[in-house]
Amino acid sequence: MLRPLFPRCPSALQAAAAASRPSSRSVLGSWKAATAARRQYSIKPHAASVFQPQDIDPSKLVLEKTKSPKTLKKPEDLVFGRNFTDHMLTIEWNETTGWLEPRIQPYQNLSLDPATCVFHYAFECFEGMKAYKDKAGRIRLFRPDKNMARMNKSAARIALPTFAPTAMIDLIAAFAKLESRFIPEQKGYSLYLRPTMIGTQKTLGVGPPGSALLYVIASPVGPYYPTGFKAVSLEATDYAVRAWPGGVGDMKLGANYAPCIVPQREAMSRGFQQNLWLFGEEEFVTEVGTMNFFVALRNRETGQKELLTAPLDGTILEGVTRDSVLALARERLVPEGWKVEERRFSMKEVAEASAEGRLIEAFGAGTAAIVSPVRAISWKGQLINCGLKDHEESGELTLKVKSWIEARQYGDEEHEWSYVC
Amino acid sequence: MLRPLFPRCPSALQAAAAASRPSSRSVLGSWKAATAARRQYSIKPHAASVFQPQDIDPSKLVLEKTKSPKTLKKPEDLVFGRNFTDHMLTIEWNETTGWLEPRIQPYQNLSLDPATCVFHYAFECFEGMKAYKDKAGRIRLFRPDKNMARMNKSAARIALPTFAPTAMIDLIAAFAKLESRFIPEQKGYSLYLRPTMIGTQKTLGVGPPGSALLYVIASPVGPYYPTGFKAVSLEATDYAVRAWPGGVGDMKLGANYAPCIVPQREAMSRGFQQNLWLFGEEEFVTEVGTMNFFVALRNRETGQKELLTAPLDGTILEGVTRDSVLALARERLVPEGWKVEERRFSMKEVAEASAEGRLIEAFGAGTAAIVSPVRAISWKGQLINCGLKDHEESGELTLKVKSWIEARQYGDEEHEWSYVC
Repeated sequence: MLRPLFPRCPSALQAAAAASRPSSRSVLGSWKAATAARRQYSIKPHAASVFQPQDIDPSKLVLEKTKSPKTLKKPEDLVFGRNFTDHMLTIEWNETTGWLEPRIQPYQNLSLDPATCVFHYAFECFEGMKAYKDKAGRIRLFRPDKNMARMNKSAARIALPTFAPTAMIDLIAAFAKLESRFIPEQKGYSLYLRPTMIGTQKTLGVGPPGSALLYVIASPVGPYYPTGFKAVSLEATDYAVRAWPGGVGDMKLGANYAPCIVPQREAMSRGFQQNLWLFGEEEFVTEVGTMNFFVALRNRETGQKELLTAPLDGTILEGVTRDSVLALARERLVPEGWKVEERRFSMKEVAEASAEGRLIEAFGAGTAAIVSPVRAISWKGQLINCGLKDHEESGELTLKVKSWIEARQYGDEEHEWSYVC
Repeated sequence: MLRPLFPRCPSALQAAAAASRPSSRSVLGSWKAATAARRQYSIKPHAASVFQPQDIDPSKLVLEKTKSPKTLKKPEDLVFGRNFTDHMLTIEWNETTGWLEPRIQPYQNLSLDPATCVFHYAFECFEGMKAYKDKAGRIRLFRPDKNMARMNKSAARIALPTFAPTAMIDLIAAFAKLESRFIPEQKGYSLYLRPTMIGTQKTLGVGPPGSALLYVIASPVGPYYPTGFKAVSLEATDYAVRAWPGGVGDMKLGANYAPCIVPQREAMSRGFQQNLWLFGEEEFVTEVGTMNFFVALRNRETGQKELLTAPLDGTILEGVTRDSVLALARERLVPEGWKVEERRFSMKEVAEASAEGRLIEAFGAGTAAIVSPVRAISWKGQLINCGLKDHEESGELTLKVKSWIEARQYGDEEHEWSYVC
């Protein structure tokens, strides 16, 4: 009762979409990488994004300025993601026309039919990035190309439209410049930018959205650690799994976030600031709450210093800060004799390094805090010390990494990662 | 460097919430069941739902009738989830007051701040259920207790509030009765009801929403197969994984749906109506697109007829139709000599049964179609015949199951599953 299947040909539409959109190729690349480690597949997915007649065109930007500018808050009163600037950037998309003209308009509510697909099927993805003010008062973005590439990957994976990354960077830069009065001059302050894309089709059938809205809102933020580092303690979560190979845990989809709250609250109820996600029977360390995770240790045999982080196997978010830490570590630590590795490592390995006095330090890495030093990890009823002495709030390497990255974010070190608006 | 951890005590708040809310216990029960098969856990999650000062109170219902009733569409023009009734049921919640008074009001757009957490972190869950008109013109719901129990489980898992199931059933019944003119008299028609809960907190910090909105909209629908069954063919998806034990694939969260579209589109691009989700190295059969999956076969050794479906191990949705099929099969097929089993079974097992002429029939099961006969499954370059002859669109068992369930839905067979509004 088995007979050969008819040949699998991608349709002309999909082939055209795949050829014309770099983001289509990248989503498949990572998708395959995420699953290839596990088993062989009979079918190669092809183009994930839909045909788009018209891309985003920054030259068509319509600017409608607010008539009631907000009063600025005192810098010290700023809370992440609670207060927003005067305006928002919005770009509508539909499958017939493609992207419509971009608009910067007064910050305002969205009015959506209750059947809109974003409310039912989580057609939503986002990015987190910041605009910084340099000594000359210029506004700078940090590696915005990485954020836009990732957003296209996220969008394509859930059948939302993709876009030309450079067009979006131009628009975000224009938006950040317009809102520059919201960015305090002091070091450590910045404007958090939240590009968001939602499906707006208002029918309940489960299918690719025929319309979408891409918008960017902005929230001025202060330093994550206003009075210097405070090391966090983590609880290893072994009763819930965040992501798996072949899933979508490497994408910045809304879908990955709501399920994280209960494990996070569980950790906090026992006195830990964050939870640590593990994967598989081997309990591989993947990421911290909503940050990537790094550990520095000494090799048992050779004594060589090693900086480890989990590989991009589909179970971790592909963090921009993670990538920046790796690049800087390869540039500056390897010449000093360090080994820098992206590989799977288990909680057992971390616990043994700690028990044998080989664990140097550990930290989370993400846009919000840049780096976040880790004091201890609760795992299987034990508290694993991550190398800090009781009076210390950060290891030496964590401090160094923060200063290296900040130097590029604020333009103190001129570098291609910094994009002057 | 290992020292014992301080004792883990659930806070008084959480203990109180756990004791007072049946839904809290059920979310943990299934969570444990979903993961227990895999490994031992050091920490038992406790109460997942938050403290609620005030539950939903149907006696406080505020009814605001529309001033512009819609014109009814012709029954044959109805499309699933595209047209909605005159009104919607809405209930707001906040962490201080709990649930506010329920409202039935004219169907209208939601106005939400662009920072609202539903757009960013997928704080959203829903249910799919139907209201039927019986021969006496009375409106009936089908097992609404199952839908409300599942919705509470979904909500608790993503830190949204839970509610008293009976209160919501009363309100949904009142809403369905109010909209009864939208339900055509003819057999096979019904009113699809979509209870939806979204987080409405308007800040970007990733944490439990401090406010939420529960709403119900209704869409009149015709029979899924207006001219009789049309068997579907499936493509087994082996390059993407829908769910994982310890994940949230057994919950009706928006998060589980957007990532299904690309694999579904891939299957359609090669001429298949739906994709079939597999799990693990063994390629266990889990579910079809957005339906549960059943296969009927003859045991190789004993010749006994067996009805198989995947177990509730965290990788499949806990379908109400699935549960109904199992209950009816146990009641009516087992006495005829069938074996009815919830167990893991692999694609290899299905392919072998087909090759050896032991595969009797296969069908999907869900609220939309009740049952959906399957003709063939594409797997590893082969097309596996699921027991139908070329001229047949359904197997005998699939037809029987449909008629059994419909008899209870429309009240032709009076049964406790049917709730008269």
